[in-house]
Amino acid sequence: MELKELAERECVELLASQVIGRVAVVVEDRANVFPVNYVLDNGYIVFRTDEGTKLDAARAGAVVTFEVDKSDPLYHTGWSVMVTGRLEAVTDPHELRRVRALPVRAWGRNGQQWLRMPITSISGRRINAAPILT
Amino acid sequence: MELKELAERECVELLASQVIGRVAVVVEDRANVFPVNYVLDNGYIVFRTDEGTKLDAARAGAVVTFEVDKSDPLYHTGWSVMVTGRLEAVTDPHELRRVRALPVRAWGRNGQQWLRMPITSISGRRINAAPILT
Repeated sequence: MELKELAERECVELLASQVIGRVAVVVEDRANVFPVNYVLDNGYIVFRTDEGTKLDAARAGAVVTFEVDKSDPLYHTGWSVMVTGRLEAVTDPHELRRVRALPVRAWGRNGQQWLRMPITSISGRRINAAPILT
Repeated sequence: MELKELAERECVELLASQVIGRVAVVVEDRANVFPVNYVLDNGYIVFRTDEGTKLDAARAGAVVTFEVDKSDPLYHTGWSVMVTGRLEAVTDPHELRRVRALPVRAWGRNGQQWLRMPITSISGRRINAAPILT
């Protein structure tokens, strides 16, 4: 079994290849993890939400973690990418108009609030089963 | 769009239906999120790891979050389940022999260390697109 750390450029490409990721928000020393539909936009991860933990975190300017992964259990290959950045609510009317035109659905409920986080740090790893022929 | 909180029993059933989840470990106020292959065993989530953040958390007896989700983008349905519990390394020789016989592969590397967390609290939600016929 091989586990390989990925270069930043590859991490961003993998991040751009998916549409569902997970936001992890720390509240009182515990991680709260929520799936979201997202899109990459000008170096930001953009997603929608409603009132709740994620919006509270954005209003507080909290640094959160975003995770995306993909696995193929049959061939036992896969990768995961982890991003950290300060979550923010999009409130500027001009910016709001622009992000509302992005192709991103709310994962749950109505998703009236638009949040984004910059890719401040990104890392990732890929696993590959040991080759059968060596 | 509908978002429904799930009953505990349903959460456990959904947790038992999957094989890949994510462990979120809080280190210095940041969530570190890692995919793992897991199995449910006697009320514990059991998975394998090597030296690193997860093993350190287990040795420190940290409370961690485990998350599993599944989405169908086409029909826009999905669910997510979140578990919290105190992570521990399985070290008792008798218990180790038993968990090593469980059908769980390491997600990466060799997975020489076996970890488990009890389902201390569990919650979940399901989304359904609004029905077309009302």
